[in-house]
Amino acid sequence: MRKVTFGGANSLDNFIARKDDAVDWLQWDKEVNSMMKEFWKTIDTVVMGRRTYEVAMKMGMPAYPRVKNYVFSRTITKGADKRVAFVSEDAAEFLRKLKNQSGKDICVMGGGILARSLFEAKLIDEIGFNIHPVLLGSGIPLFHEMKFQIDLDLLDCKRPKNGCVIVSYRVKN
Amino acid sequence: MRKVTFGGANSLDNFIARKDDAVDWLQWDKEVNSMMKEFWKTIDTVVMGRRTYEVAMKMGMPAYPRVKNYVFSRTITKGADKRVAFVSEDAAEFLRKLKNQSGKDICVMGGGILARSLFEAKLIDEIGFNIHPVLLGSGIPLFHEMKFQIDLDLLDCKRPKNGCVIVSYRVKN
Repeated sequence: MRKVTFGGANSLDNFIARKDDAVDWLQWDKEVNSMMKEFWKTIDTVVMGRRTYEVAMKMGMPAYPRVKNYVFSRTITKGADKRVAFVSEDAAEFLRKLKNQSGKDICVMGGGILARSLFEAKLIDEIGFNIHPVLLGSGIPLFHEMKFQIDLDLLDCKRPKNGCVIVSYRVKN
Repeated sequence: MRKVTFGGANSLDNFIARKDDAVDWLQWDKEVNSMMKEFWKTIDTVVMGRRTYEVAMKMGMPAYPRVKNYVFSRTITKGADKRVAFVSEDAAEFLRKLKNQSGKDICVMGGGILARSLFEAKLIDEIGFNIHPVLLGSGIPLFHEMKFQIDLDLLDCKRPKNGCVIVSYRVKN
């Protein structure tokens, strides 16, 4: 079965973007990029919520390159970029089917609301985050309130020179 | 001037306790304890909010040993334990005076609401947290919404064998 990782970058106070969706506080760094490159080799599919897709569009990034992009949306059915497929069915049901298909691993991007439903459906296998050295003070939260506790096993904790802390955990489903 | 550290333990989704104040998810570990012992040698004063004090009382810990305990409260003026002093004046004003007195360093415990007012008054010099490998799903938040962004410098990141990640940051005030 394909592994599903919920991944991205967050502030120490667990925001993934400012309230206006800005991610100007993200640090781009050669060392981190080369770590991320290794991760991208292991996946061929990215899934995201409608909001994350729209924010990425605004930033001029309509699709992640070299992977299949699925966007969960009940309202959008067609986009400008052919690499993106829109999915109106239940996100958990769809992801469960994807996991059972053959292929490389899958990454859940961005939105804490999508992630919550996937956590609650026990579909997330790993969490990987690049914790940035900043308290944003307010913003879009990484984690939303969930129905139950999820125990984790620390897999790795890297400390690149730029002051970020990159952690990865296995979800004990 | 004495250094003020906001410190404690949190879940990966940034809660310091469950909604009912329970901290049964905290891991006690020899390796972590010996790290904490080193920290306790550097401080002689603990400040906390009324809620944190009441939770500690409930857990049978009316005061931290071998340090001065200050509890900020407008309602409580006297407690059962002589080691605890209650402070009704503005927390930021009081802490500013404490910082200018001679002594060892100071630790701000627990409550995100007290911490927020002290962050906003630029009185916190360092942050130190023991991130536990768990998503609690809900609880008492570590960080509350703040008026502005606070930039941090990563000082240290330790990875004890029990799966926790212990991070410390200098606040760029």
